[in-house]
Amino acid sequence: MAMRQHRAHGFDQGLRAPGMTGQDDYRQALENAERLLGQPLVLPLGDGEPPVGEDFRRLATIHTFGDSWPRSGLDDRSRALISVAIAATLGTHEPLRGQLRIALNSGVTKEEIVELFIHLSAYAGAARAFDSYQVALAVFAEAS
Amino acid sequence: MAMRQHRAHGFDQGLRAPGMTGQDDYRQALENAERLLGQPLVLPLGDGEPPVGEDFRRLATIHTFGDSWPRSGLDDRSRALISVAIAATLGTHEPLRGQLRIALNSGVTKEEIVELFIHLSAYAGAARAFDSYQVALAVFAEAS
Amino acid sequence: MAMRQHRAHGFDQGLRAPGMTGQDDYRQALENAERLLGQPLVLPLGDGEPPVGEDFRRLATIHTFGDSWPRSGLDDRSRALISVAIAATLGTHEPLRGQLRIALNSGVTKEEIVELFIHLSAYAGAARAFDSYQVALAVFAEAS
Amino acid sequence: MAMRQHRAHGFDQGLRAPGMTGQDDYRQALENAERLLGQPLVLPLGDGEPPVGEDFRRLATIHTFGDSWPRSGLDDRSRALISVAIAATLGTHEPLRGQLRIALNSGVTKEEIVELFIHLSAYAGAARAFDSYQVALAVFAEAS
Amino acid sequence: MAMRQHRAHGFDQGLRAPGMTGQDDYRQALENAERLLGQPLVLPLGDGEPPVGEDFRRLATIHTFGDSWPRSGLDDRSRALISVAIAATLGTHEPLRGQLRIALNSGVTKEEIVELFIHLSAYAGAARAFDSYQVALAVFAEAS
Amino acid sequence: MAMRQHRAHGFDQGLRAPGMTGQDDYRQALENAERLLGQPLVLPLGDGEPPVGEDFRRLATIHTFGDSWPRSGLDDRSRALISVAIAATLGTHEPLRGQLRIALNSGVTKEEIVELFIHLSAYAGAARAFDSYQVALAVFAEAS
Repeated sequence: MAMRQHRAHGFDQGLRAPGMTGQDDYRQALENAERLLGQPLVLPLGDGEPPVGEDFRRLATIHTFGDSWPRSGLDDRSRALISVAIAATLGTHEPLRGQLRIALNSGVTKEEIVELFIHLSAYAGAARAFDSYQVALAVFAEAS
Repeated sequence: MAMRQHRAHGFDQGLRAPGMTGQDDYRQALENAERLLGQPLVLPLGDGEPPVGEDFRRLATIHTFGDSWPRSGLDDRSRALISVAIAATLGTHEPLRGQLRIALNSGVTKEEIVELFIHLSAYAGAARAFDSYQVALAVFAEAS
Repeated sequence: MAMRQHRAHGFDQGLRAPGMTGQDDYRQALENAERLLGQPLVLPLGDGEPPVGEDFRRLATIHTFGDSWPRSGLDDRSRALISVAIAATLGTHEPLRGQLRIALNSGVTKEEIVELFIHLSAYAGAARAFDSYQVALAVFAEAS
Repeated sequence: MAMRQHRAHGFDQGLRAPGMTGQDDYRQALENAERLLGQPLVLPLGDGEPPVGEDFRRLATIHTFGDSWPRSGLDDRSRALISVAIAATLGTHEPLRGQLRIALNSGVTKEEIVELFIHLSAYAGAARAFDSYQVALAVFAEAS
Repeated sequence: MAMRQHRAHGFDQGLRAPGMTGQDDYRQALENAERLLGQPLVLPLGDGEPPVGEDFRRLATIHTFGDSWPRSGLDDRSRALISVAIAATLGTHEPLRGQLRIALNSGVTKEEIVELFIHLSAYAGAARAFDSYQVALAVFAEAS
Repeated sequence: MAMRQHRAHGFDQGLRAPGMTGQDDYRQALENAERLLGQPLVLPLGDGEPPVGEDFRRLATIHTFGDSWPRSGLDDRSRALISVAIAATLGTHEPLRGQLRIALNSGVTKEEIVELFIHLSAYAGAARAFDSYQVALAVFAEAS
C-alpha cells in the first residue's frame, strides 16, 4: 500500500521506485491487476510452451498493469473505458474480455459499456462494433 | 412499398421521410434488412444484457439498413459486394457472415464471391483473404 | 435547449424526437458538434465533389454528433476520451485531430491526453502510439 | 486483344496462358493496368532503390492487374467498387488514389463513389470514412 | 530440384521459368509449401464451394509459396520470422497457425517465437500480442 | 558494456538489473537505441506539450529499446526484420522510417528490405505493401 503510493509518486516524478528489480515490478503489476480484475491474474505456462514464455507474461504485465494503470494522472474508471475502446477497436477478443471484466469491477456499469459500443459503432463502424459486442454479451452473461 | 419509395425519394433530397420517429426508422430499417437477408433480422437481448442494448441494435440497424442500403444511388448488388469487401477486409467474422447471406440473396453468385476473395487476396493479402474465406466456406455450406 | 433535453430524453426512450426530419436531425447534430468543438463544424463541398457529398456529411454527422454524443448515458468527458482512443487506435489522423480538439474543449487536460497515449502504447503498441501522437503534438501546439 | 481473350479464357480453365514468361505476364499486366487507369502505369525506380525493386513492382502488378483484374468472373465496374472499398477500409491513401482513378475510368460515377463512402461510414465507421474521403476529394478535384 | 534452382535463378533475373503454365506454377508452389510445412498443403474444396474456389487456392498459393518464398534474396528462416510477424500483427489466426508451423519446421525455435511475441507486444501492443499468442500456445502444444 | 551484458543476462533470468531505477532504465534504453540507429534517438518535447510527455517517451522507449531489443534470445538482425514487418503491416509511417534505418544499420541490406516487401505484398496485400513502400523509398534515398 505504502509501496503503491511510493510507486505512483515515483511515476509522477518519471521514476520507477528505486531498487525495484524486474521481479518486484512483476509482483507489483500482478497486485495491481488483481485489484482491478477483482481476482488474481493467473497466466500458467501452456503445454509445450518454453520457460521464456514467463518473460512474455512478465513484460506484457509490467508494461500494462505496472507502468500504465497505477499512474495517478488518470483514474481507473477512465483507463477502463479507454482500455475497452482500444481492445474493441482492435477486435482482440480475449483481451477485450479481460478489459470488460476490469471495467465492470471498476465502477463502469453495463449501461455505460453499451453506450461505449454505440459510440464505437458510429466511429469504428457497425461491423467492428457488432463483432466486438459478442464478447460484451458473453461478459454480461457471466455477471448476470 | 409506397413508403419505401417515399423514403428513398426523401434520401435523394437529403431528407428523412417527414414525421418518422426513431421507432418508425427502426421498423423501416428492419423491413429493409429482412428484404435483403431473405429472413427477419432477429436481435434478441442477451442474458444479463441491459435494456439499453436495444438502442445499440436500433441505431446500428438504422445507420446501415435504414440510412445507407435503401438509398437509390447504388443498387443492392453493388452494395452487397462492397459490404462483403468491407467486412472481409476488417476480418469481422460475424458481420461478414451476414453480408455473405445478403449477397447470395441479392443475386451475387457464389462464383462472384470467390472472385471477390481472389481480388481481396491480391490487394489485402493472402493472410486476411484466407482468414475471411473460412466464413465464406461456412456460408457456402449452408446454402448447398 | 428544451429541444436538446427533449431529444436526449427521446433517446433514453429509444425514440428520436417526433416530427424531426433529416434536416432537423442534421441541424441538431451540427449544433451538438459546435458545442463540443467550441467552434462551428464547417464541411464545405470540395472542388468537383458532387452534391450528394452533402448526404455523406449529413449522415456521418447525424450518426456521431446526433445519435451518439448527446445520449445521456455517458458524459461528454468520457465520450471524448473514448473517441480519442478509437481514432488513435485506428490511426485516422484527421478525425483524431478533431477528437483531440473536442477533448481539450470538454475538460480533458493535455496531461490526461498524454496518459491516454501511455495507455495506448501499452495496449496498442509503441508504433501506433507514436504515429498517432504526432497528431496530438500538432494539436498541443495549436492550443499553446 | 486475342491475347487478352486467350488469357482470360486460360484463367477460366485455371491456367495461365501457355508459354508466357514472367516478363510476358508483366507486359500483359501493365497493359491491363493502362486500360483500366486510362493512362500508363509508370513505376520508375526511386533514388537509391536497388534493382530488385523491379521485382517488387513486377510481382505486385502481376498479382493484381495480371492475375485478378482480367478474370472474366467479375466485371471491371464491380472490381473497381470492390478495390475502392478494400483500399478505403485499409486506409492506404496512395493505393486508394489509384483505385479511385480506375473506378472513374471504368464507368463508376462520382455520385456512386460517394454512396460507397456513405456505406463505408456505416460499416467501417465515420473515422475511417472521413480519413479515406480526403483522398476521394483530391481525386474529384483532379477530374473536375 | 534442378527445376527449383532454375526457378529461383529465373526470379533473380526477374523472370518466371520459361514455358511454365499456371498449373506448373501451382505444382511448384505446392512443392515449396510441402517442403516448408514438412507436410503436404492440402486445400480440398468445401461443401457447396464452387469449382472456381480452386483458382482462389491456386493464385494465393502461387503468390506466396511460388512467387515469394523460393526467392533466393532472403533465407527461409528470415521469411518465416517475417511471416509470423505479419500474420500475428494482422491477427489472422488460421494463417498464423500455418506460419508458426513453417517457422518451427524451418529451424526457428519455440524460444525465438516467444521472443518475437515479446517484440510484437512492445511494437503492436499487449492486446494484439496476447490475442495472437493464443495461436502460438496451440501450436506449441501440437509440437510437444 | 559490462552493464549491457549484465542486463542481457538479467533478462535471461527474467530479472531487470538489480538497483536500476526508471531513469537508469531510460538511459540504458537510449544507449541501445543509439547503438541500433547509429545516431542518438532525440525526442524533444513539442510546442505546448506538457512535461508528462517525457513519461510517454521514457516508457515507450524502455518497453522497446530497453525491454525487448537487448534480449539475447534473438539477434538484432532478426529483430530488425521483424520490426520492419510489424510497422509496415500496421502502416505506421513514422515508426516504419525508424525501423528501416535500424535495419540498414544492423546489417540488413536494401535488397533484403525489398524482399521483405515482396513477402509483405503476398501476405498483407499489394495495397498495404505499396503504401508502406513509399517510406522505404524515402529511406533508400537518404542512404544513397
